[in-house]
Amino acid sequence: MVLLSGGMDSATCLALASRGAGPVHALSFVYGQRHVRELRSAQRLARRYRVEAHRIVRLPLAELVRSALTRPGSPLPHRSRRHGAIPATYVPARNSILLAVALGYAESHGLDRIYFGANAIDYSGYPDCRPEFVRAFNALARRAVRGPREGGRPIRIVAPLLRRSKAEIVRLGSRLGVPWALTWSCYAGGRAPCRRCDACRLRARGFREAGVADPTAWPVRLGRAPG
Amino acid sequence: MVLLSGGMDSATCLALASRGAGPVHALSFVYGQRHVRELRSAQRLARRYRVEAHRIVRLPLAELVRSALTRPGSPLPHRSRRHGAIPATYVPARNSILLAVALGYAESHGLDRIYFGANAIDYSGYPDCRPEFVRAFNALARRAVRGPREGGRPIRIVAPLLRRSKAEIVRLGSRLGVPWALTWSCYAGGRAPCRRCDACRLRARGFREAGVADPTAWPVRLGRAPG
Repeated sequence: MVLLSGGMDSATCLALASRGAGPVHALSFVYGQRHVRELRSAQRLARRYRVEAHRIVRLPLAELVRSALTRPGSPLPHRSRRHGAIPATYVPARNSILLAVALGYAESHGLDRIYFGANAIDYSGYPDCRPEFVRAFNALARRAVRGPREGGRPIRIVAPLLRRSKAEIVRLGSRLGVPWALTWSCYAGGRAPCRRCDACRLRARGFREAGVADPTAWPVRLGRAPG
Repeated sequence: MVLLSGGMDSATCLALASRGAGPVHALSFVYGQRHVRELRSAQRLARRYRVEAHRIVRLPLAELVRSALTRPGSPLPHRSRRHGAIPATYVPARNSILLAVALGYAESHGLDRIYFGANAIDYSGYPDCRPEFVRAFNALARRAVRGPREGGRPIRIVAPLLRRSKAEIVRLGSRLGVPWALTWSCYAGGRAPCRRCDACRLRARGFREAGVADPTAWPVRLGRAPG
């Protein structure tokens, strides 16, 4: 199964998972994110890859946790990884929550791998996108569900993009034929990419460095953006 | 903060947490459980202990995972821990999901401890109630949220009842003055305890062995129950 946000990384994961033998299930989440537009991308990608099942799960995170990503109107950071600080778009424990739901879904449906498009190279610095986090979640997954003696099968989190740069992801995805035009990265929640938020800038840099044209958006400005 | 289901164990955790200096927040979940009646108990307990905040979180788990606990009408097991099998009331990855949401809430509200009433002695055998699970979740919690260098403070899962028998929990809770009459254990979803499900039987045995009268329910049959 694949955690499918609708962005570049999860789309690449979907392409990777679809090369396997078994059926692929995709899970997407509406958790109060401003850029709920990404869900439309997730749906289109799921259809394109003919997944066995695509479930959209509503979680009331915006009422529970504090983040610029779930608070419309609050400013979005424009530069990633400044002085190692965690940007305001970090959603507390979000990936733990999404992976835990995925774990329950995988156990219920007999799926043994969860593709998770976390990336710790060209990323925003979120703690729950790092290799240590993925390792700790895998250790949890071994204990959180039915063990082999109890009729269960091991479920593993697979994070194939963890140590790749955005340019490498663009190259890999292009090789796999990922329909980039269907993906969505911008955090801002507008109808077109804002070209200024972290997600837009990381995307633009990835395409530029990979020497691939981004079919979705017009060129993204990379100079200093107003705060 | 306390994960407050409304049962005996979480009520005892609430009593323990309330003895501390700081404010106590409680989180309860409507996840499609048949015994949503327990939420009324959670609300009464939260009021009784004058918690700072009590949030009831809706999660659509019943549509995502398979369990007798979220499927009205499916039979409930009447004997706990038969041959080490996991009973049908196990909800896949439920405690991982609830703790992950609690983790995000705790980080957002500056709370550093999550009381979790898991018990691995007189319990139904669920994998996510065992010491290994609690240990693995704590290891995850250290990596899943902002670290000390990033302006975060460590958040710890505290499971004070993990290695206590139900009778010991009854004795501890009675000493702390837990209002047992406000708690709810039965899984069946009726207006009165069914007296036959695992939860009812574990409760009855705990009170009997502790030599304490259960103020809520009439005596629970402990003989062999029809399958």
